Amino acid sequence: PGKIISKVVEFARKTKKLGQDDPRRIIHSLKVGLAITLVSMFYYFEPLYDGFGVSAMWAVLTVVVVFEFSVGATLSKGFNRGLATFLAGTLGFGAHHLAILSGEKAEPILLGLFVFLLAAMMTFVRFFPRMKAKYDYGVLVFILTFCLISVSGYRDDEVLEMAHKRVSTILLGGFAALLVCIVICPVWAGNDLHNLVANNIEQLASFLEGFGPEYFNTSEDVESNNTLLEGYKSVLHSKQTEESLANFARWEPCHGQFRFGHPWKHYLKIGSLTRKCAYRIEALHGYLNTKNQTSQEIRSKIQDESIKVSSESVKALKELAMAIETMITPSAATLHITKSKIAAKNLKLMLNADLCKETDLLEVIPAVTMASLLVDVVSCSEKIAESV
Amino acid sequence: PGKIISKVVEFARKTKKLGQDDPRRIIHSLKVGLAITLVSMFYYFEPLYDGFGVSAMWAVLTVVVVFEFSVGATLSKGFNRGLATFLAGTLGFGAHHLAILSGEKAEPILLGLFVFLLAAMMTFVRFFPRMKAKYDYGVLVFILTFCLISVSGYRDDEVLEMAHKRVSTILLGGFAALLVCIVICPVWAGNDLHNLVANNIEQLASFLEGFGPEYFNTSEDVESNNTLLEGYKSVLHSKQTEESLANFARWEPCHGQFRFGHPWKHYLKIGSLTRKCAYRIEALHGYLNTKNQTSQEIRSKIQDESIKVSSESVKALKELAMAIETMITPSAATLHITKSKIAAKNLKLMLNADLCKETDLLEVIPAVTMASLLVDVVSCSEKIAESV
Repeated sequence: PGKIISKVVEFARKTKKLGQDDPRRIIHSLKVGLAITLVSMFYYFEPLYDGFGVSAMWAVLTVVVVFEFSVGATLSKGFNRGLATFLAGTLGFGAHHLAILSGEKAEPILLGLFVFLLAAMMTFVRFFPRMKAKYDYGVLVFILTFCLISVSGYRDDEVLEMAHKRVSTILLGGFAALLVCIVICPVWAGNDLHNLVANNIEQLASFLEGFGPEYFNTSEDVESNNTLLEGYKSVLHSKQTEESLANFARWEPCHGQFRFGHPWKHYLKIGSLTRKCAYRIEALHGYLNTKNQTSQEIRSKIQDESIKVSSESVKALKELAMAIETMITPSAATLHITKSKIAAKNLKLMLNADLCKETDLLEVIPAVTMASLLVDVVSCSEKIAESV
Repeated sequence: PGKIISKVVEFARKTKKLGQDDPRRIIHSLKVGLAITLVSMFYYFEPLYDGFGVSAMWAVLTVVVVFEFSVGATLSKGFNRGLATFLAGTLGFGAHHLAILSGEKAEPILLGLFVFLLAAMMTFVRFFPRMKAKYDYGVLVFILTFCLISVSGYRDDEVLEMAHKRVSTILLGGFAALLVCIVICPVWAGNDLHNLVANNIEQLASFLEGFGPEYFNTSEDVESNNTLLEGYKSVLHSKQTEESLANFARWEPCHGQFRFGHPWKHYLKIGSLTRKCAYRIEALHGYLNTKNQTSQEIRSKIQDESIKVSSESVKALKELAMAIETMITPSAATLHITKSKIAAKNLKLMLNADLCKETDLLEVIPAVTMASLLVDVVSCSEKIAESV
């Protein structure tokens, strides 16, 4: 029993953390509950129920399936579902009509053939990368509706009426979901993408901020430094998140500081440059573990210049992140990058002058590599700066 | 019209390429068509139709939604759907019964409350990362079924019979999907994961193979070399694919050379080490563009040793990829790694002896960095070797 209690406590702790990390999650859950309850209530209004009958269930189904976390995702799913249902309904009705014309015996064979061909073709279409990214759900609904309409029609000649009812309930469900999603505390995918990209650049800055003290053993607060140093890791794997957010953001109407048709693709470009920089930083991170191969003496020689390089980069990156966040052209970023480039040049010169003559090069190599990775990071930041 | 024709041709070319890249895609499309047609045919058998009625549509719906590319994904989705439908059906029936007991007036209020609470709670549960990875679809179906059963029951007191019919048609559809998926040319997620991990290591090897000739300008066939050099980029973003494949693979029964309970998690470990190595290689790739900052003379000095380092690493990595593919403990890999470590040491010594004295260190730095990244790659491969 003690084990069960500890598990329950653990679960409660996790739940609380999830809610605290992003309170929008709690609001989202309540919104979904509200939308579903609203639509379910259709069953209780006699006039509405008499109009739709069992079809009312499609409204509930649509809300459950279409309601997503961000407005863009909900819009894109709702649009996919609506359009696909309409197209497939029309086509399904056509196929059904054609099959009936061909006579009693040929009907099931013809319909079977239609269903087979369409399902196979549409399944193949889902493999196209561009279709997969944008219309995967629509194609699925298309197959589904086509099969349901064309086949069920065999029994029931009121296909047209059924299709009409189904389309209208689905539209109703879709609108209910959208309304609740947009009106009550909307979550904008575009806003999330915007913050993610800015935040990723900031993560790189915090790594560089923590790197200097860690490498040269001047840091005191080891604990807090470690969190600074690990933050960049999420940047490495942010590609898919960014792409799906950009996909959803294209669907959103203007909101806050973003107009419709905001250049979302540009964020992907900045994001991929940020990732490139993060890969260099990952390589740099490796040198934290092997730092003791280089003697303290050598390290202290390059300390000042290295820290200058990284601190100027930090300033530049922070400036860039800020610029993205506020959407104001960065003014001081270029200055900081020029400064860090000068510092990098000084670092190189010093390596050349000081170290080569007196000490064993073998010992210096890791330091040199570290320094030139740092310089790489600087040139990566320069590219990010250009594209902001 | 000329534009339309060229678009059609372009589309046909893409379609052909998709099919050629992986012929299993075509087979998969045909399989889906077959399964749906099979299930649709239920409508045409009088005895079966009389048994299920309109519920037969749930079988079609299940096949369309559950049928996935790999056996593991289909199994996991089918299991999710089946279990969630059963649980939600039971709970929904309970809620409905409770509401009826509470009297005519309180019934809709109570049901609305139940639906709201359950939908909100379950939506929140979907945010747990572990739930999201494994049971996201199941939770969605759970919400859906609970709402449909508990609410529709307000009109129809034969809820139990309806629930029974729905569960059995869903089971039927699920079995049909599984049968077609497993019997006809099955695609195993485990097999795919196995090949992906081995292939990723090979991609790294091909990069290193192409890197030497490219950096030292000794390559002749630029075209084919470029494809060698770009291959590793897919490794950088393979994390999500690997994780979902591993998730699906856990569901699969024994097949081919894999037993049930094969250590799929181990592949993720190897995969993440491979990615770490790929990050170093990405940094190394940057030096191909700046190679002309180092004079030809210096480069030719370190040419032999560098190529030795990389070619031994290539051999080791290829050996490892082969070992994963054939599941035989690698015999020669450790030997090659030892050799490449020796070569790396020689390279370092040579850098120390030769270059420092005669030339300007400033010019050498990129070469040194290149070399030590190469050494990093070697130590990464060593870690991969240990974990295979």
